[in-house]
Amino acid sequence: MKELLEKFEDYLLNNLPKIDTFHPHFENAMQDMLKAGGKRFRPMLLLSVVKSKKPLLIENALKVALAVEFLHTYSLIHDDLPSMDNSDLRRGFTTLHKKYDEVTAILVGDALNSESFNLIANSSLHNDVKIELIKLLGENGGLNGMIIGQAIDCQFEKQKLELQKLEFLHIHKTAKLIAASLKMGAIISNYDENIQEDLYNFGLDLGLLFQIQDDIIDELESSEIAGKTTKNDSFKNSFVNLLGLEDALKSADKLAKKCLETMNSFDKNLKDSLFELLINYINRHKKYNS
Amino acid sequence: MKELLEKFEDYLLNNLPKIDTFHPHFENAMQDMLKAGGKRFRPMLLLSVVKSKKPLLIENALKVALAVEFLHTYSLIHDDLPSMDNSDLRRGFTTLHKKYDEVTAILVGDALNSESFNLIANSSLHNDVKIELIKLLGENGGLNGMIIGQAIDCQFEKQKLELQKLEFLHIHKTAKLIAASLKMGAIISNYDENIQEDLYNFGLDLGLLFQIQDDIIDELESSEIAGKTTKNDSFKNSFVNLLGLEDALKSADKLAKKCLETMNSFDKNLKDSLFELLINYINRHKKYNS
Repeated sequence: MKELLEKFEDYLLNNLPKIDTFHPHFENAMQDMLKAGGKRFRPMLLLSVVKSKKPLLIENALKVALAVEFLHTYSLIHDDLPSMDNSDLRRGFTTLHKKYDEVTAILVGDALNSESFNLIANSSLHNDVKIELIKLLGENGGLNGMIIGQAIDCQFEKQKLELQKLEFLHIHKTAKLIAASLKMGAIISNYDENIQEDLYNFGLDLGLLFQIQDDIIDELESSEIAGKTTKNDSFKNSFVNLLGLEDALKSADKLAKKCLETMNSFDKNLKDSLFELLINYINRHKKYNS
Repeated sequence: MKELLEKFEDYLLNNLPKIDTFHPHFENAMQDMLKAGGKRFRPMLLLSVVKSKKPLLIENALKVALAVEFLHTYSLIHDDLPSMDNSDLRRGFTTLHKKYDEVTAILVGDALNSESFNLIANSSLHNDVKIELIKLLGENGGLNGMIIGQAIDCQFEKQKLELQKLEFLHIHKTAKLIAASLKMGAIISNYDENIQEDLYNFGLDLGLLFQIQDDIIDELESSEIAGKTTKNDSFKNSFVNLLGLEDALKSADKLAKKCLETMNSFDKNLKDSLFELLINYINRHKKYNS
């Protein structure tokens, strides 16, 4: 798994967006947040699925994995803007609107959004596959996916949402892109359609689990440890605020168990590949269970 | 031409983005600026080219024309934001960040950006054609196209740029998407590659011409007539500010003449189709020649 992550990091560093103009900082700004790290979670999900079935296709899948990372990174840059979360830190670095200005942060996000689709179109996969991937990214990362989730998150930031609506929010804001990343890996490596759907649904559970865990971490950890501005979220809808810490931990336990069961139902290669990536994440809330 | 525009308007109204959630205004906000009108210039360029060669493909091209209008509309919504042009009016209506809030304007723009690529992927053209169109939209509407143009426009808003840099700005900010719209029509209708390139280059000239004309109109007309907040541009780099009104008018004359000559070099159907659409635009600066 370390090898796969290194391969992705190398690919990313060799394929950073380039702009050849007289703008003093736009190219740097385009690259800053991509180079800043993060868990590379979505691309690793995609690549892990490909590795389990068609390891020889990993080279071809790297551009698609990068596309998913571009889309995710744009969403973080826009989420951090003054009118949204107004965060000063992201991935341990100063956010773009603080380091440069708001215009730069908005336009870098816009460019990464468009470029994510362009990357898939320029990958060396069959055009039929590329179109399927672009549709999936559009459906899950766009209007009726991530964006409506973020819109609801901001709109209801000071009104307590009921559980069903809070789940809707996070399934859209977070889980759909995670689910799509897994399914994209399955499409690239030509897994049966039912496995594609199983992976997608597994991704929805996983995304929800991570959000609940994030809410727990935001509640309990300081901003140094999380590497981004925390406590901002304390006025927002979170599972901890809605359910209380204890029940949030119980929900995380329940979802983690479901995710582990689903992984165990996959064939050996897929299971091994996902376990290797996920095992440290799935139970990361456990250390707060006391 | 009126018929073609009506066809596009009908198609647009029947294919507005839909969101089925409990968010109080996001669906309306997604639709407001699309319904607000505008000249539909980019989709009409695309459709006029298709009409000249493969009129039976117009139905299939409508979704791609809509994609171009989505991309253009997102760029207007983001350009109007407080950190950029800070405009209260667009297409004669209150801008989204004024009517709702900044979050909504940013996210509606993001959604229209993603959705433009998704629309092309979901059109009923051959997948090879769709991939070519997506690449073209990504190259011209993205990072090294429209976005770097806008970034330069904002970055240098209070520094006078030399003519070459000002042209670079507007070729990227405005002309490339116009050029791409023409070439997309040519790709859909399978024009020879050299015609595709001729149309693209014609589009770059046309885009630059329109920008010079816009600068002239911004200088001379009041905000009621233009239907958007004007005079904001008077502190920005504009051809009128750089060249003076008289020389800006001369540049417009020269480019208009070049555009007319290029159109005359096209075969009859293409020429007729473009003339019908463009004749009222190409000389629109003439009324200020006195």
